[in-house]
Amino acid sequence: MRVRVLGSAAGGGFPQWNCGCDNCREVRRGSPRLRARTEESIVVSADSRSWFLVNASPDVRRQFESFPALEPGTRRGCPVDGIVLTNGDLDHCLGLLTLRESEPLAIYATSRVREGFKQDNVLYRTLERFPDQVTWHELPLGRAVSLASRDGTGSGLSLEAVAVPGKLPIHLETKVAPSAEDNVGLRIREESTGRTLAYLPAVAGPSSEIDDLTAADCIFFDGTFWSDDELSRQGLGTKRARDMAHWPVGGDEGSLKLLERMSGRRRVLIHINNTNPMLAEDSAEASAVRAAGVEIAYDGMEVDI
Amino acid sequence: MRVRVLGSAAGGGFPQWNCGCDNCREVRRGSPRLRARTEESIVVSADSRSWFLVNASPDVRRQFESFPALEPGTRRGCPVDGIVLTNGDLDHCLGLLTLRESEPLAIYATSRVREGFKQDNVLYRTLERFPDQVTWHELPLGRAVSLASRDGTGSGLSLEAVAVPGKLPIHLETKVAPSAEDNVGLRIREESTGRTLAYLPAVAGPSSEIDDLTAADCIFFDGTFWSDDELSRQGLGTKRARDMAHWPVGGDEGSLKLLERMSGRRRVLIHINNTNPMLAEDSAEASAVRAAGVEIAYDGMEVDI
Repeated sequence: MRVRVLGSAAGGGFPQWNCGCDNCREVRRGSPRLRARTEESIVVSADSRSWFLVNASPDVRRQFESFPALEPGTRRGCPVDGIVLTNGDLDHCLGLLTLRESEPLAIYATSRVREGFKQDNVLYRTLERFPDQVTWHELPLGRAVSLASRDGTGSGLSLEAVAVPGKLPIHLETKVAPSAEDNVGLRIREESTGRTLAYLPAVAGPSSEIDDLTAADCIFFDGTFWSDDELSRQGLGTKRARDMAHWPVGGDEGSLKLLERMSGRRRVLIHINNTNPMLAEDSAEASAVRAAGVEIAYDGMEVDI
Repeated sequence: MRVRVLGSAAGGGFPQWNCGCDNCREVRRGSPRLRARTEESIVVSADSRSWFLVNASPDVRRQFESFPALEPGTRRGCPVDGIVLTNGDLDHCLGLLTLRESEPLAIYATSRVREGFKQDNVLYRTLERFPDQVTWHELPLGRAVSLASRDGTGSGLSLEAVAVPGKLPIHLETKVAPSAEDNVGLRIREESTGRTLAYLPAVAGPSSEIDDLTAADCIFFDGTFWSDDELSRQGLGTKRARDMAHWPVGGDEGSLKLLERMSGRRRVLIHINNTNPMLAEDSAEASAVRAAGVEIAYDGMEVDI
């Protein structure tokens, strides 16, 4: 199974369009300590022929162009055989509206994520221009489904959605009641080898389901914030990491302690906010991540599982 | 008055994510005959301090990063003092949802364009997270309004919206009745010099209002398609330019004939579709444009008026 990181930043990207924090100013100056990053998204393939996009970020157009395997092979054609959504955040869904040409799309999501994007959304009409423009495949919690290749021959991959602690997307807060289907982690399995990828870009805190998911051969995990008070400490807002449903990486209670214990497999932090000090490659925080045997995702990173 | 072209392509960009036409394949190969382009958008300023974004494209984040004048000057801050919309197409509005951080936004649009984006759009709730997150300024047809700088000292620019032939955005087709407010051209005037920019990125065909607008010192004009049957001729679809409300540039009835007659001012074609043969700098079509005294916009182009 081959994974290509199309984007590794949290919502707003890195640098973030409205931010003049130390990291953002330094990356704009072209510092070698920091790499610019687009918003979190990966593609996965078992055969390097059928690719599946996980999360459709607002940067999707340039992300497709960044990876030659996603060039349209025909006069017109969608570069991916399917799109998987881990939650309904606009960071993960806005790109669907960018893909509103005359191309049929296959989208895999929980029923809650599907309805949270479709219902009361007049913009979705751009994806209803012809019959079957979008085929939704429901992701039931805890049960694997096959990912279908466009030509019907099978992709060699299956996918299981697992509820993980998270929250509703901002546009649904106070409008609908939260549900276990609002935010999922994925277990993607290559059928020929049995090897697995766990993909958890948004995790609000520990849970038994996460312990189970992290038995995978490779784990991508929420790396949004280093510390709970990261924004307020930098004078950039009052919200804490936990208010935004992201488990901080650092500290005694941080997710790095969990990841450190999972030796013998690749562990990668992704969905990294522009304020996270581990973005600077020579920072103490980046050193601590490396010392724990964990990697920090960057755009263009490839992992063979 | 200073104009910076942030993006010069039509919806889908160039190369277009799902397209393998001759132009798209060649620009992906890095041919010196063709430049990649993001989706149409400009910024305008009288004082190089207060900038106004015309159309918020899906590429807005990287477009801001492409122009150092738009770096946030403070710890957090919106790089532009206001955003002007010429119609409700997602090419022009989707970027508003990318700008959904904790930044107040000032948006100038006709009431129809405003309602077409706000109404029945659950995603718009991300722009209603705090009071006055968005301040809408109504653009009445045919009457100039001042563009306000954020600090209240005045921007030195005024703006008039003029109805031009166009169409409803796709997401409103068959849902609401068309109106003269659906698609406008802009006359932007520098108050200190009286110099004017006419900005018309979508024009379905000739009209007396257009003749009036084009008395400006500089004219940006719809350059989407070269010919009416451009897509079908290349095997890329059945729609004609006129079905998409774009006046072709070439031919006896083309807009280039109009622009050619307006000598003595700068005339620039923008919003160029990936299939347009004039994108190749050594093409007969690009030569014909130059021979008419007209320019072809590219990302990063600057015009002083």
